[in-house]
Amino acid sequence: MTDEQLRVAVVGAGIMGTDHIERLATRTKGAMVAAIVEPDGSRAAAASALAPDAAVHARIEEALDAGGVDAVLIATPGPFHKAVLLPALEAGLAVLCEKPLAPTVEEALEVLEAEQRLPAPRIQVGFMRRFDAEYAALESLVRSGDAGELLLLHCAHRNPSVADTYTESMTITDSVVHELDVVPWLAGAGIGAIEVRAGRRNRASRFADPQLVLLELENGVLADVEISVNAGFGYQVTTEAVFERGVAEIGRAAGPIRAQDGRVGVAEHRSYTTRFAAAYDTEVQRWVDAARRGGIDGPSAWDGYRVAVASAAGVEAQRTGRRVEVAPQQAPAFYRP
Amino acid sequence: MTDEQLRVAVVGAGIMGTDHIERLATRTKGAMVAAIVEPDGSRAAAASALAPDAAVHARIEEALDAGGVDAVLIATPGPFHKAVLLPALEAGLAVLCEKPLAPTVEEALEVLEAEQRLPAPRIQVGFMRRFDAEYAALESLVRSGDAGELLLLHCAHRNPSVADTYTESMTITDSVVHELDVVPWLAGAGIGAIEVRAGRRNRASRFADPQLVLLELENGVLADVEISVNAGFGYQVTTEAVFERGVAEIGRAAGPIRAQDGRVGVAEHRSYTTRFAAAYDTEVQRWVDAARRGGIDGPSAWDGYRVAVASAAGVEAQRTGRRVEVAPQQAPAFYRP
Amino acid sequence: MTDEQLRVAVVGAGIMGTDHIERLATRTKGAMVAAIVEPDGSRAAAASALAPDAAVHARIEEALDAGGVDAVLIATPGPFHKAVLLPALEAGLAVLCEKPLAPTVEEALEVLEAEQRLPAPRIQVGFMRRFDAEYAALESLVRSGDAGELLLLHCAHRNPSVADTYTESMTITDSVVHELDVVPWLAGAGIGAIEVRAGRRNRASRFADPQLVLLELENGVLADVEISVNAGFGYQVTTEAVFERGVAEIGRAAGPIRAQDGRVGVAEHRSYTTRFAAAYDTEVQRWVDAARRGGIDGPSAWDGYRVAVASAAGVEAQRTGRRVEVAPQQAPAFYRP
Amino acid sequence: MTDEQLRVAVVGAGIMGTDHIERLATRTKGAMVAAIVEPDGSRAAAASALAPDAAVHARIEEALDAGGVDAVLIATPGPFHKAVLLPALEAGLAVLCEKPLAPTVEEALEVLEAEQRLPAPRIQVGFMRRFDAEYAALESLVRSGDAGELLLLHCAHRNPSVADTYTESMTITDSVVHELDVVPWLAGAGIGAIEVRAGRRNRASRFADPQLVLLELENGVLADVEISVNAGFGYQVTTEAVFERGVAEIGRAAGPIRAQDGRVGVAEHRSYTTRFAAAYDTEVQRWVDAARRGGIDGPSAWDGYRVAVASAAGVEAQRTGRRVEVAPQQAPAFYRP
Repeated sequence: MTDEQLRVAVVGAGIMGTDHIERLATRTKGAMVAAIVEPDGSRAAAASALAPDAAVHARIEEALDAGGVDAVLIATPGPFHKAVLLPALEAGLAVLCEKPLAPTVEEALEVLEAEQRLPAPRIQVGFMRRFDAEYAALESLVRSGDAGELLLLHCAHRNPSVADTYTESMTITDSVVHELDVVPWLAGAGIGAIEVRAGRRNRASRFADPQLVLLELENGVLADVEISVNAGFGYQVTTEAVFERGVAEIGRAAGPIRAQDGRVGVAEHRSYTTRFAAAYDTEVQRWVDAARRGGIDGPSAWDGYRVAVASAAGVEAQRTGRRVEVAPQQAPAFYRP
Repeated sequence: MTDEQLRVAVVGAGIMGTDHIERLATRTKGAMVAAIVEPDGSRAAAASALAPDAAVHARIEEALDAGGVDAVLIATPGPFHKAVLLPALEAGLAVLCEKPLAPTVEEALEVLEAEQRLPAPRIQVGFMRRFDAEYAALESLVRSGDAGELLLLHCAHRNPSVADTYTESMTITDSVVHELDVVPWLAGAGIGAIEVRAGRRNRASRFADPQLVLLELENGVLADVEISVNAGFGYQVTTEAVFERGVAEIGRAAGPIRAQDGRVGVAEHRSYTTRFAAAYDTEVQRWVDAARRGGIDGPSAWDGYRVAVASAAGVEAQRTGRRVEVAPQQAPAFYRP
Repeated sequence: MTDEQLRVAVVGAGIMGTDHIERLATRTKGAMVAAIVEPDGSRAAAASALAPDAAVHARIEEALDAGGVDAVLIATPGPFHKAVLLPALEAGLAVLCEKPLAPTVEEALEVLEAEQRLPAPRIQVGFMRRFDAEYAALESLVRSGDAGELLLLHCAHRNPSVADTYTESMTITDSVVHELDVVPWLAGAGIGAIEVRAGRRNRASRFADPQLVLLELENGVLADVEISVNAGFGYQVTTEAVFERGVAEIGRAAGPIRAQDGRVGVAEHRSYTTRFAAAYDTEVQRWVDAARRGGIDGPSAWDGYRVAVASAAGVEAQRTGRRVEVAPQQAPAFYRP
Repeated sequence: MTDEQLRVAVVGAGIMGTDHIERLATRTKGAMVAAIVEPDGSRAAAASALAPDAAVHARIEEALDAGGVDAVLIATPGPFHKAVLLPALEAGLAVLCEKPLAPTVEEALEVLEAEQRLPAPRIQVGFMRRFDAEYAALESLVRSGDAGELLLLHCAHRNPSVADTYTESMTITDSVVHELDVVPWLAGAGIGAIEVRAGRRNRASRFADPQLVLLELENGVLADVEISVNAGFGYQVTTEAVFERGVAEIGRAAGPIRAQDGRVGVAEHRSYTTRFAAAYDTEVQRWVDAARRGGIDGPSAWDGYRVAVASAAGVEAQRTGRRVEVAPQQAPAFYRP
């Protein structure tokens, strides 16, 4: 049933792209890696070993010209997203674009504009947390009203360490960006204002770390987000949701409980690759299923734009120490559900 | 790439078979439901809706005669397994046979004999627990020796309730049968003897329940298995493994922690369908991957035969109240890894 | 050994005072209830049944005049504390004063002045959390440096409900007042500034609830405190401490784990009386032991004064929505350890 | 109020006796250490430092002759219990006797006979687990019927290590002896039969370890007890109770949850001294309170005798590998509640 398999061009064969190639080649039902787009020859060769039948190209335009591609999965660094998104939209292909949609609000708007020339949204943005089983359960709990209305969210986002190239503003644009998507999604309201606080610095850090990010949502829900990128002990992403009649927490480590050496407990994740492994699988499967039907099933480019707006406000808040209001445009009818 | 997709005939479209059809049709990479074999017309029709391109047959022979089938997934009741296994082996197809391999030791031996006429094992038996992430982690811990040698296993297997057709001996042949596979797999040794105890009966039960099953493994490891099939509160399958230098437990419920109504905790499973959902997916994916390479990747027919021997001993132990020795034949070279 | 038992006058026989009378009469080693001071006749009579040998007085002066009292435990409402503290200090007696030391900074200063006329501090303030085993363990962890330096504290303080007489400012003066003592104690630094945020209101509340209180400590540690006084589900006081190399949490409910009705978990506390029962016992025992040696062993009047300053700032922050700096005087030598 | 303080002679100033002296001297309300009976001079001197006003004697008879003693707390090794119990009973004193009541059934019967010459029971036996908050909560749950009837008990009793003088039979007489008291207490029925199994031996052990002890109670409840005395990782005493409609577990470690070094969990106990610290305090306080009223409030000498019978049967079961029936005499009216 070749004609029914979604033929995906994966753009970017770094860690993330290679992971997606392996996923599409071995686990995602109904999809195949038709092309790998990667200018770096050795990366392209390594990725190609995972999907031997895929064509290899150095540039997206080549892949599109060669044909035989139904969809594009973009896993390049953010600054290169627009250059892939625009021709992919032009070709009318389905797109899964790793977060962020674009590094600036301006670029995000440019992408929105291009997409709106199509009959319907084709871009899904890779905020994979929405596909994590616990986040999804928490979102269902909010929607159900079983514990009353949602009032507060306490989030923690802890990385064991970051690369030398990671800078202070990336705590917002690269890390908290996930909360900038998932908090409004959980709360059912956009971000109205953002503040960033830093206190005592972890001596393992080159910049302010940890930081406390305060989000005011348009429906009154408050969220605090601890971002720690030198946490050392493990990779931990938790949310505690305070409702009118109860509290729910997600992100506690699970797995075999070991009693050894005087302690009893479970292993913590060390990386997003294990913490969100199932979420990535679900995200990609649902995108493929939707793309084969001509739609998307997850965060849209509009969601990506809103995150870009909040992210820019967050960087300003971080730089100035002030509360910064977040004022995205109204969603056009094109993006309304 | 039609030629690369494993074309599976699913035999039996009851609850389990329908579940497998849905899995193969929507989640399993590299497989398609080529045929559905089900004599009951309305069941066949319902299942067919999940895999519209699949041919529908009333008998396995018809499906085999029609061709276009690479593999058979058997999900009929156990008494009908042999009648599907023998022609499937004759046709040289890959087989995933739901547990148990066969309802009697004699039938199991007959199947082994037929399989040994092939160049290599083609039957994988559906003991899905080996594919559960926690069981797999526990097995790794045993193999690693990180906590010393394994000494004891404490298992609990609790069902909220059972159908009216479920009888006392089915506690062994239908329920504990899973432990009869997974305990030797964890311990790395066969079952040498089995005893069954019953004490105070749950008033919700028509027969002895709960029961305590004691297993002596050939390497000295002891295992106790509580089987409760009227536990009411949920579906719970746990194992506590005692090592020389530590203890490890699996099967504790995970997921969002809710504090509400004066209690703090998580939801328990209500059925094996959620508890082992991921295990079934993994099992079938790994079987498909192996079948496409011409092999198996999980419990073999020999494992299925050993379980049949232990299961028969268990039923005798249950009936007589005595310790019954378990003496399977030596594994022929054909089945040795 | 009558002469060795600390003869305590308990002032105030409301819920808290009665609880202390019962504790002193039945559990506290080395102390006896020598007098009960309570103007309300029926309360006095009820309390007297728990300590039949105690003299009963309507006013503290009568109790002091009658003699036979070594120490005073003050459990009246805060506005009446000063009127008991001053004559008790005048008489040179040991004092355990329930929190807060005084309702205003001015009254607290007046008490400090009176106490400094004595050779050494005699007032211990009843911030019992410091005597809770988990708080104490967390404080030890901070002191030990085993997880690196303390960086952040996330606190939650949840009451199922409050009385009709409870007002919005009491969220600070009556509830968060505990965190205003224990956060600086844990962090090893005073509070430098305080802010209060309110978002979406619990519909069960007459005033802003929940609220988020942000504390900046003088050593850079940040603390966020969620105060919810209509939480419904239970009484929960938790702290998550973020260190340079790890995270520690206290206040998670413990006790028998029950699996029933589809859920697995433990009972949550419903009131401070059970959550901190052992802490109160420890607090009073250690105060009695210290009082018999002529000293105190817990929060001093100076600590009580600092909390009064922070509390006043908190009420202002709550009223104005602004960040308010907290500037207590320097501790006089008299109060330095 | 000297005349109201229970004047206790503590017999035996080893680890356990010294612990009790410290408890009585500093924490137990309404009691004082009036005498220390210890033939070893240096031990006596060390203990005396904790209770300077206590008289010191080498033999119980001297202490009794000297007078001024209301009660005796026996903390000598078991073989010496009878020699203290008989004169203490003769003197009509209240007794708290550390477990076991006596090392043999014969001696236990001799003690029972002596006690029955008094108007009412005066001996309480030191099975402290009944005073542990979690055991007590579990017992309440059994009594309440909230989860239906109790059906099974799964117990684990794990010691990190034992002294060189500890022998195989002591696993029963010294360790499982606690379960021989507490299991019937929880289940509300006596032990009818006992079996002992040993499997693969922990290489850290000089004798069979771990062992599995199976108890059949007279009301049909079954209990399995894992005894491990070389568990290494910590001191752990757990019970999982299976009811008709739910399961309850006690003994899971509590306390601060630490995330560090890739793991998340709590500290396990290393010794009974911390695991049961509060239980010992409660036990002694309740014994003192009862003794001052002329009675006991905990396991009686009859309970101690029944444990001696079960313990002897357990040792025989261990030696022979056979199921041994346990047949204590009927409780005389003297001991019936």
